[in-house]
Amino acid sequence: MTLPEWVPIRDDLRPYEPYGAPQLDVPVQLNVNENPYGPSKATADDIAESLRAAATELNRYPDREAWALREALADYLGHGLAADAVWAANGSNEVMQQILQAFGGPGRTAASFMPTYSMYPEYARNTHTRWIAGRRADDFAFDVDAALALIADEQPDVVLLASPNNPTGESLTLDAVRAVCDAAPGLVVLDEAYAEFRRPGTPTALSVLADYPRLVVTRTMSKAFAFAGGRLGYLAADPAIVDALRIVRLPYHLSTVTQTVALAALRHADEMLARVADLRATRDETAAWLRAQGHDVVDSDANFVLFGTFADRHAVWQGLLDKGVLIRETGPDGWLRVSVGTPEEMAAFRDALTAVLESPSIRQENA
Amino acid sequence: MTLPEWVPIRDDLRPYEPYGAPQLDVPVQLNVNENPYGPSKATADDIAESLRAAATELNRYPDREAWALREALADYLGHGLAADAVWAANGSNEVMQQILQAFGGPGRTAASFMPTYSMYPEYARNTHTRWIAGRRADDFAFDVDAALALIADEQPDVVLLASPNNPTGESLTLDAVRAVCDAAPGLVVLDEAYAEFRRPGTPTALSVLADYPRLVVTRTMSKAFAFAGGRLGYLAADPAIVDALRIVRLPYHLSTVTQTVALAALRHADEMLARVADLRATRDETAAWLRAQGHDVVDSDANFVLFGTFADRHAVWQGLLDKGVLIRETGPDGWLRVSVGTPEEMAAFRDALTAVLESPSIRQENA
Repeated sequence: MTLPEWVPIRDDLRPYEPYGAPQLDVPVQLNVNENPYGPSKATADDIAESLRAAATELNRYPDREAWALREALADYLGHGLAADAVWAANGSNEVMQQILQAFGGPGRTAASFMPTYSMYPEYARNTHTRWIAGRRADDFAFDVDAALALIADEQPDVVLLASPNNPTGESLTLDAVRAVCDAAPGLVVLDEAYAEFRRPGTPTALSVLADYPRLVVTRTMSKAFAFAGGRLGYLAADPAIVDALRIVRLPYHLSTVTQTVALAALRHADEMLARVADLRATRDETAAWLRAQGHDVVDSDANFVLFGTFADRHAVWQGLLDKGVLIRETGPDGWLRVSVGTPEEMAAFRDALTAVLESPSIRQENA
Repeated sequence: MTLPEWVPIRDDLRPYEPYGAPQLDVPVQLNVNENPYGPSKATADDIAESLRAAATELNRYPDREAWALREALADYLGHGLAADAVWAANGSNEVMQQILQAFGGPGRTAASFMPTYSMYPEYARNTHTRWIAGRRADDFAFDVDAALALIADEQPDVVLLASPNNPTGESLTLDAVRAVCDAAPGLVVLDEAYAEFRRPGTPTALSVLADYPRLVVTRTMSKAFAFAGGRLGYLAADPAIVDALRIVRLPYHLSTVTQTVALAALRHADEMLARVADLRATRDETAAWLRAQGHDVVDSDANFVLFGTFADRHAVWQGLLDKGVLIRETGPDGWLRVSVGTPEEMAAFRDALTAVLESPSIRQENA
């Protein structure tokens, strides 16, 4: 996309493309870490009937504070949280943008450790927050010492950490979270978008939230909750942090429609989350199969697997797409990320990958 | 609201309160310019059934470009517009924030002419855009010469003009729009949130859109469309301007739920808009009654009436609230704004205002 010269966009934005993975209509979609199991008929019915009851009053503005939804999210999270310690917005994207509007911005700094979620620098760009990209270790593990050194040097106002990390998949230990919180002078944001998929015994930062008033834990209904189309991101934090976000939130940012529908989905949390165990098992089978094929694979606490490396990963990605399997060309050079789908979808992925890697042109490039 | 000192919010934000009129549960709500006539049972049913059909696929992300919705909005607007000349977001608030993220920001300037919509300076603050507040004439009419002088002096990157203006109610002439577009070096944003309520013969800036590639016309479904709870704002502009907004929009900013429900509501546009003529008539009756009581009243093209002046407008506002009638304490000193409700709601407003202004304490203060 090239904007004509007459378009008076900011000069610093002019070189960019709109962010986003290709949205292609192919049979097997394993590119954006969606839950392959959609809401059931019963859940869909409850969603529709809840909205029917609310729809004749859609001429009225929504509850600007979204109290009922925040109460339901607090109940879902547990850990003794109340509604005033929870905030929600149109996807984690908007939650993160609000965090950087309130706590970042011109003259302030946000830091994270690469490879990590590729939207983080976009949030920083959109809010004019200086962006510091630290590194994870060569095996993508979180390097606590390197992180503490960067924090000491740069004194970032906001530290963004994904756990499980995207696109690599590992979780942070609570010791690492504590060490960062002890060292960071400002906000520490733990992005737990994939928390429900973590392996047994892996902690959530919610368990140390009470110890660190400047710690924020973000979550989403887009992944385990099978509600990507509903766009509901949320966070847990000290109520004073939530109050700070209320200053920058656009009034009525969450529609009555979104509040109503998300509340209905939350009533079906047990069903929505029931498939998480299946997805974990499919993930581990996928990782084991990829290893058995001789690929490098990162152990994942999420609903995706990062594998590689390929001399020409784009050719592998394109080869899979040509066979109707869409995965994601993202993360460090040479690696590819596949979302965990149904067993049938993963079989299609395995077959397609096998065929692609046996094709003469790919074999030569990736030899 | 006072944030504790330890909350590391930006210093420039710390003094602010979250924006928004009081949300109070009173019988007669005439404070936020909602349409008093909600969607019908038939529309509510279509909304619910449309979402039921989409709900089992809410595990998938929405169409990031919202093409079907933008096509429907383009059809609704007419004027030969196509979907690529239309953009939509979660309320006009988000549309405006995106405009200032792309075309304002640090080192750039936005200007408007007071009294006007009180969110404009908040959009500027949230995007670090320098804010220039020009003036309208003493009778609140748009002063073209003063506006051109300010534009010549300040060279604003974005000029924001509400037509009909909020909270005063007058529309801009096409000559005024043309004069501003000819003079402004950057974007000219015509906020036509209340356009459907304008008096016969009052033009929309859509009719000159083709002449000015840097002209943007924003609209909302919150007012005439009786869809405030759906949070759907949109704009019409040159497709290259829309492309610039796509760089700063958060990916998947419009949920499948919002797209589906707004599309269903648009199918019932005739019904939703059928009450606009009634509301215009009620508005004009309200203005005539207020004048007959001896108040100053601004002629309104919108679904509200600004009236005054009162030495202690807060006491009048509170007196009305005590009688169950909530209006808005906004705009220039001494004035109050009442939204146009049903004939029954306006009768309650007239009775309450009469009683309040006859009470001894108010009579003395406003003598």
